[in-house]
Amino acid sequence: MQVIHKIEKMQRTSSEYFMNGKTIGFVPTMGYLHEGHLQLIKEARKQNDIVILSIFVNPLQFGAGEDLDTYPRDEERDMQLAEENGVDVVFLPSRDTMYPQPLSLSISVDKRADVLCGRSRPGHFEGVVTVLTKLFNICQPTKAYFGLKDAQQLAVVDALIQDFNFPIELVGVATIRENDGLAKSSRNVRLSQQERKEAPFIQKALKKGNGMVADGTKNPAQIVKETKKFLESQTHGRIDYVELLSYPELEPVKEIDRQVILAAAVNYQQARLIDNVIFDETGTISQG
Amino acid sequence: MQVIHKIEKMQRTSSEYFMNGKTIGFVPTMGYLHEGHLQLIKEARKQNDIVILSIFVNPLQFGAGEDLDTYPRDEERDMQLAEENGVDVVFLPSRDTMYPQPLSLSISVDKRADVLCGRSRPGHFEGVVTVLTKLFNICQPTKAYFGLKDAQQLAVVDALIQDFNFPIELVGVATIRENDGLAKSSRNVRLSQQERKEAPFIQKALKKGNGMVADGTKNPAQIVKETKKFLESQTHGRIDYVELLSYPELEPVKEIDRQVILAAAVNYQQARLIDNVIFDETGTISQG
Repeated sequence: MQVIHKIEKMQRTSSEYFMNGKTIGFVPTMGYLHEGHLQLIKEARKQNDIVILSIFVNPLQFGAGEDLDTYPRDEERDMQLAEENGVDVVFLPSRDTMYPQPLSLSISVDKRADVLCGRSRPGHFEGVVTVLTKLFNICQPTKAYFGLKDAQQLAVVDALIQDFNFPIELVGVATIRENDGLAKSSRNVRLSQQERKEAPFIQKALKKGNGMVADGTKNPAQIVKETKKFLESQTHGRIDYVELLSYPELEPVKEIDRQVILAAAVNYQQARLIDNVIFDETGTISQG
Repeated sequence: MQVIHKIEKMQRTSSEYFMNGKTIGFVPTMGYLHEGHLQLIKEARKQNDIVILSIFVNPLQFGAGEDLDTYPRDEERDMQLAEENGVDVVFLPSRDTMYPQPLSLSISVDKRADVLCGRSRPGHFEGVVTVLTKLFNICQPTKAYFGLKDAQQLAVVDALIQDFNFPIELVGVATIRENDGLAKSSRNVRLSQQERKEAPFIQKALKKGNGMVADGTKNPAQIVKETKKFLESQTHGRIDYVELLSYPELEPVKEIDRQVILAAAVNYQQARLIDNVIFDETGTISQG
């Protein structure tokens, strides 16, 4: 496994793979790898000749008061996990390498952004699409892999690739869960013992909302209300949102007559957790 | 010479060139080719295995009341000139191909944009960098060619490539002129006979300003004032600006102690003309 720190070296390396007819699967991460990331790597490994993993804690996608400085890091363990899971190249740039000077340009996300997590994290998706634009141009992948846990991110990256014609295929990978249903996240390690017991109810609440649709309820407001009520009864975490929108357009619906996402975010003392379920008008689940 | 209309076909074609080890020189244009464009093509032809010319009148870079609908077109002649000058591929997309639906994302140009032409054309450079982001991802060139006549555009494209890490080398090509010094432009055909006589004084005025620096004047305000005064005395066109800035940063300078650009824009009845001269603190010209 090769570790590359410099942009020009990474570009040259990717170009050489490409010239040799190799397909490149790309998994962008902020490190502190967990099984969710490994699932992305495994998918990339199955579908491509070469797997590139990037590890970069992108300051641009953290807001004021968010957890940039305390975001967990364990480079040694990440490297070991990358190697064990068949990664060919780790791209590990410094902050100065990625942002040597203030940018002259900036990207706005005008659709799909001001709902769900975007509403409470102004500028977050701008930071995400900016660093991905850079990483796509540096790593030049054939396919890029993102988890469906952050379904809004996937919808925004889909818009990025479509709008700017990146020659990249976007692959969404299903959420990986603990045995009790809690979605895997780097931030789970920061839950207290009590919070860890309550957190699986995020998924249970979403499944309950989904069950209402399977049972014939088509009114989004009613489903959101019941889901929220159940979740509030089961956890002390502060509910940031429970929201139901069309997917992947992320627009409000008056009636559930197409594919939708039911998503929630809960703030615990040291961690903000998100989860979602995506299903059609009959309640049949495609993700979650 | 191959003419390609579809994005996927163009991406596949460029990828194949790349896999065969060919370098690609890219000349993006809005068509109605003149000798300035041909100079870009000739440079690209000299320095690369393959030359791609794009012709697309990009609505995004025209403001309200600008000349989008009357921008001159002559596809047949463009194709002939492209072929004669050794272009390998013309990328000629329709507006619906480039913008099949409203964009979800937008790019702002936060530096180098609100001076010179950018000041009187709000949104212009946003349109330019957006279409270039798309065209770069579609044509995937090794080098991209732009004229130094639009020196601000070159400075903005430089920022685009640096900020977003496009694996592309930017090449600035010197301004091509008529015998009387008028910079070549698609818009020159729209000058009245009288305007055509006056227009070469744009360059003469800029050279006069440059001459003042060679003669020891270091005060930007004084040079701008004299340049403007001379230009006003020689043409009925409405002067949009005469401006002196550092180059390529495009920031105001208190004293001429580094490389600068002296640039002017003049509005005639049916055409807006721009020109510039770039020189150092001794007055030695590098462009113009």
